[in-house]
Amino acid sequence: MREDTKMKKAPVPLWIVGSVGIDDIKTRTDDRKNLLGGSVPYSTVAASYFVKPGAVGVVGTDFPAVFERRWRRFGINLDGLQREAGETFRWACAYDDNMIERTTLDTRLGVFAAFKPVLPETYKAAPFVLLGNIQPELQMHVLKQASGAKFVALDTMNLWIDTALPALKRVMRKVDLFTVNDGEARQLTGKWNLLDCAAAIRKMGPRYVIIKKGEHGALLVSEKGVFIVPAYPVRKLTDPTGAGDSYAGAMMGYLAKAGNVTDRLMREALVHASAIASFGVEGFSIERFEKLTAAMIRARVRELTKMMTV
Amino acid sequence: MREDTKMKKAPVPLWIVGSVGIDDIKTRTDDRKNLLGGSVPYSTVAASYFVKPGAVGVVGTDFPAVFERRWRRFGINLDGLQREAGETFRWACAYDDNMIERTTLDTRLGVFAAFKPVLPETYKAAPFVLLGNIQPELQMHVLKQASGAKFVALDTMNLWIDTALPALKRVMRKVDLFTVNDGEARQLTGKWNLLDCAAAIRKMGPRYVIIKKGEHGALLVSEKGVFIVPAYPVRKLTDPTGAGDSYAGAMMGYLAKAGNVTDRLMREALVHASAIASFGVEGFSIERFEKLTAAMIRARVRELTKMMTV
Repeated sequence: MREDTKMKKAPVPLWIVGSVGIDDIKTRTDDRKNLLGGSVPYSTVAASYFVKPGAVGVVGTDFPAVFERRWRRFGINLDGLQREAGETFRWACAYDDNMIERTTLDTRLGVFAAFKPVLPETYKAAPFVLLGNIQPELQMHVLKQASGAKFVALDTMNLWIDTALPALKRVMRKVDLFTVNDGEARQLTGKWNLLDCAAAIRKMGPRYVIIKKGEHGALLVSEKGVFIVPAYPVRKLTDPTGAGDSYAGAMMGYLAKAGNVTDRLMREALVHASAIASFGVEGFSIERFEKLTAAMIRARVRELTKMMTV
Repeated sequence: MREDTKMKKAPVPLWIVGSVGIDDIKTRTDDRKNLLGGSVPYSTVAASYFVKPGAVGVVGTDFPAVFERRWRRFGINLDGLQREAGETFRWACAYDDNMIERTTLDTRLGVFAAFKPVLPETYKAAPFVLLGNIQPELQMHVLKQASGAKFVALDTMNLWIDTALPALKRVMRKVDLFTVNDGEARQLTGKWNLLDCAAAIRKMGPRYVIIKKGEHGALLVSEKGVFIVPAYPVRKLTDPTGAGDSYAGAMMGYLAKAGNVTDRLMREALVHASAIASFGVEGFSIERFEKLTAAMIRARVRELTKMMTV
């Protein structure tokens, strides 16, 4: 336990808030139950290849000790993980044969319903912050505690665009980077062309906008122009759950390690994010990451870069 | 007319066979009638920025002289354009608001129904050939006349996969490059993953496979690996008709000018194709090309390359 004790005292360079859950996931070929899920495990594990991030979330008394051990093995600081009386957030879904569309079969919020994130002291000075997809009021609440935040990224989902738009817009004014998928970008802005969407979003606050297009990759739009980053073409797609979270986590981990944000670093970060997210979807939950080495990541980044290079 | 006479005598380095038609096109904001359409005008005009290609197709007695003049102005050799008694192929379509899905409102084959392509003498030695989307038997028929063909590209559509699969497979065995959109690649191979589709198609004959994904760009797969080329993000999409034809034409024009095919040249060709096709969809028919300069193309190629570069 010596290492854990040390981790708890060192300030983290990046923390990530979001959901922590237990997932049941059905695909055409598999039916897996009781998996470690939620946005924070995916994004912190992906970030851990660059820095040791802090996790902010809530679990119930039923959260398996083995999940915490497996998660902590990536060097992640779990001081921000609250344990409350009640059940952990649970989510069940079934993917269509194309592995793109999915049907939510069950959602039980449990202790996540009353989640009120509290930032540990060792997180407050962190320059890099990823506000994962939770209610915008909570994102604002936790951001206010982040006195050292210098570069803040925000993720969201259609639910909050539908039900909490004014609060979402308030958070958007406070962040540097906004990440959103293509459908949500269109829903949020009322525009169809993704460059028009990005321009409209940049007017709402964030200097950097990343529009994610699933298996078609992503667009980064900033004052420096547009960067088009493809998704690494995965040969054996096992479970797409958490791909966007891994993507955002890896990107923020890369930037936190660099300790700086430039257009060049952002482009490099996105290529690394694409490579890391592509490993994630080759397994359920964080299972693929548990067998992933730095050399494998370097090789895939090289391969993807070659695929993009004229 | 001196220039035309000269053109007719010089052998062409590339010829393209396909449809020539008169289109009516409706979009959310426009309703245009009697436009020069069909795959050959789009693809030969796009190729004309690199070499002066030959066109193989058929028109009726109603084909307007002004279409021919405007088309010829790009330096295209029209010796392969047959004129038959009857009506020119006509097609009418309406695009959905998203400018992706479209509904065919009317198709009248006219003289295209009895089209039997004959290759002019000055085309026979051409090393580069693009077999545009026509009945596979006709593609084979015209290819047999191409004694000098060294690099043959083939395009097709879902109709021939449904109704003429054995003939299509026979042509596929004779070509070097096969270009197909993602839906058609899946239909043809019965596989979902596009890398699996490309591998299956390569086993059918073509060394090079290009899978087009519309606004998401394209994948090139060969023994040298995968190249992912994005579509240039168009700000003002006016009419997507012919984008795939311009893309294939520009690519073949680039290769014909180089006089050679390597992985590097193919990648360069696809970036140029993406840039040129992106201009095409900014106007109806070939209208945008009529105001397009070499400097504009160079600038867009530079811009797209910057968007792809880490």
